[in-house]
Amino acid sequence: MPNIFDELNPPHRILMGPGPVGIDPRVLRAMSMPMLGQFDPVFTTYMNETMELYRQVFQTKNKWTFLVDGSARAGAEMLLVSLISPGDKVLVPVFGRFGHLLAEIARRCRAEVVEISREWGTVFTAAELTAAIEQHKPKILAIVHGDTSTTMAQPLDGIGEVCRKHGVLVYADATATLGGMNVDVDGWKLDAVSAGLQKCMSGPPGSAPVTVNERVAELVKRRKHVEAGIKPAGFVEGDGPIIQSNYFDLAMLMDYWGDSRLNHHTEAATMLYGAREAARVVLMEGLEPCFARHRQASAALTAGLTAMGLKLFGDQAHKMPNVTGVVIPQGVDPDGVRRMMLDNFSIEIGTSFGPLHGKIWRIGTMGYVCRKENVLACLDALEVCLRKFGFNAPAGAGVAAAQAAYAGK
Amino acid sequence: MPNIFDELNPPHRILMGPGPVGIDPRVLRAMSMPMLGQFDPVFTTYMNETMELYRQVFQTKNKWTFLVDGSARAGAEMLLVSLISPGDKVLVPVFGRFGHLLAEIARRCRAEVVEISREWGTVFTAAELTAAIEQHKPKILAIVHGDTSTTMAQPLDGIGEVCRKHGVLVYADATATLGGMNVDVDGWKLDAVSAGLQKCMSGPPGSAPVTVNERVAELVKRRKHVEAGIKPAGFVEGDGPIIQSNYFDLAMLMDYWGDSRLNHHTEAATMLYGAREAARVVLMEGLEPCFARHRQASAALTAGLTAMGLKLFGDQAHKMPNVTGVVIPQGVDPDGVRRMMLDNFSIEIGTSFGPLHGKIWRIGTMGYVCRKENVLACLDALEVCLRKFGFNAPAGAGVAAAQAAYAGK
Repeated sequence: MPNIFDELNPPHRILMGPGPVGIDPRVLRAMSMPMLGQFDPVFTTYMNETMELYRQVFQTKNKWTFLVDGSARAGAEMLLVSLISPGDKVLVPVFGRFGHLLAEIARRCRAEVVEISREWGTVFTAAELTAAIEQHKPKILAIVHGDTSTTMAQPLDGIGEVCRKHGVLVYADATATLGGMNVDVDGWKLDAVSAGLQKCMSGPPGSAPVTVNERVAELVKRRKHVEAGIKPAGFVEGDGPIIQSNYFDLAMLMDYWGDSRLNHHTEAATMLYGAREAARVVLMEGLEPCFARHRQASAALTAGLTAMGLKLFGDQAHKMPNVTGVVIPQGVDPDGVRRMMLDNFSIEIGTSFGPLHGKIWRIGTMGYVCRKENVLACLDALEVCLRKFGFNAPAGAGVAAAQAAYAGK
Repeated sequence: MPNIFDELNPPHRILMGPGPVGIDPRVLRAMSMPMLGQFDPVFTTYMNETMELYRQVFQTKNKWTFLVDGSARAGAEMLLVSLISPGDKVLVPVFGRFGHLLAEIARRCRAEVVEISREWGTVFTAAELTAAIEQHKPKILAIVHGDTSTTMAQPLDGIGEVCRKHGVLVYADATATLGGMNVDVDGWKLDAVSAGLQKCMSGPPGSAPVTVNERVAELVKRRKHVEAGIKPAGFVEGDGPIIQSNYFDLAMLMDYWGDSRLNHHTEAATMLYGAREAARVVLMEGLEPCFARHRQASAALTAGLTAMGLKLFGDQAHKMPNVTGVVIPQGVDPDGVRRMMLDNFSIEIGTSFGPLHGKIWRIGTMGYVCRKENVLACLDALEVCLRKFGFNAPAGAGVAAAQAAYAGK
């Protein structure tokens, strides 16, 4: 007799880590809709609508705006492996874990990788980035927009202009920022951008919205190949080096999402339903009101933490509004507090990686979870748990300060 | 004002193509459960249970049995890119489209690929496969189990034994067969197997169950690397060539799914919920009863099609029970019939690729859709549509023959 376990019955959590976060109920509802065949005219219409919705979310007119079936790093790898030919020089500014990730993916694509580094908790100045571009003359700049590992957002306005001047393509990873703060793809002249759903987009992990402009489309068309089993008569292969992944071959994905509808993978239909609804949810609220809600939560949370006598981590001028790093007080057990938060209040807050491990907690206020009641509940619970572990915050001070911030006082 | 389109409202289809098919309602229900953080103890328990469930579905004791976040071809690429070091010789027997796909992925991994071919609609004999292994002495045999493009299932029993004798690793793509017919991973001594959910597993596309044995685990451990941002102190890199994909790095996926729980991607939680439930649904029915249901549907469908005066495609001794190829009668418009089936009866049947394009339709009876009422409805509708396009089947003969087959007559 097989052991088939019980039906799923997960506890209800308030997910205030750096993502994934709770899914908007409207997105879950959309995901329960009946399946369609991948070339059903209704489904291809939904694909086209999804492309249009993400153009609006990414603030771009890019034709090639669609989903990659995989987690956020699948989107990053798809773009990097399609952009990079072996031997290409790629400049990666590293100010947290996800910079390291981009550098590592680029190395696996056999790029010549040049890394420049910043201490975790800070970002690069425009002058530093410009100087590095001028010094190293890369083919591609691969840069993280918001790095949840440090809570920092790297300003990208202006960098696209510098890259164009020097013939550099710029790829930005907006996983942590899309839907939570301004990601102005066309205004900032970013050539390729990827994201995920599981942070400020209030969707499930496992689908990566991406967008690329015509500069990128031209580049990958020269690397185009079609599978033997479905190659149309007379198809001419590109003269560039073949992209080293089939699944992540941008040229093939364009043929699948474009008018030729050439078969590639089987699109993850329920994920597409979810992604489509997640974009609608954000656009129905409006991009700017959505960003403002994240800023307001950040102001309230940081006011509350400060009033409790806690120290915020990193350069506050460049902190993302959707995640806040807070320094763990001397002598307090980092995992003990997190466990007590989870076991007693069903609130998840985040641990940290690398040089910050055991030094800061990361508290997310992302997407559907970014609501006043959650911010207040989190501060309240944190006060209780900290006291249990020997750190006495003034009673009620955190919640009161957050309420005042929400009231605009 | 943004154009946000309407709420999703897809029509109800009976999906009788070669996949994706309709999702079992229990799977959809599981997918609507609340999100958990990826290292929440409840979530890691669900991950472990999912591994155990797929061990039972794959009929294996392999520890490393888990999900890849992506479509079925993501599972295939993950295994091939992790198994293949540049220059490795890979033997690919091609008897349909998906053999071409495996060969192409292997080439992108810089393998030396040797293809052997069979006419579409046939499979290789054991003697042919053994002779090719002995002649070419590959490091890896990459073979499709069931190829929906031709409806054929390649017998794999015995091939693992031959491969072990010659020091060859065997990878099999069981996307089309898992849950629909016997896939005896341990009994057949297959070293690595991948599948999907969207065919006989009655789940959504976008998650790929995979399993590998200790021979494969040993090989990839020598190619192990860890990202700079999260590398534990004292970690020693493997001495083998780095796997050319980060997302598809099997060694990293093992660290994520294993006890060390080293962070990699963010697991697609709703997909995992769906995959877990899809396995439970199959195991609650029982593997053998589930296979028998597919065999019975195949017997009924083929009896019905034959009684209508239609000709079945390919070597019937090796046809998969879950999909049937039927030759399009002379003079009948292939797409016209399919469109009429969809528009009038909301039944989807499949077109074909490559050499079979315009020559056969493929009718699937997979997973949740594999039910008597669907088989009968499909035959009934097909009779009506064929008549409209000039092919007159004896009235009611198809349905009657299928009913008789279901009744065991």
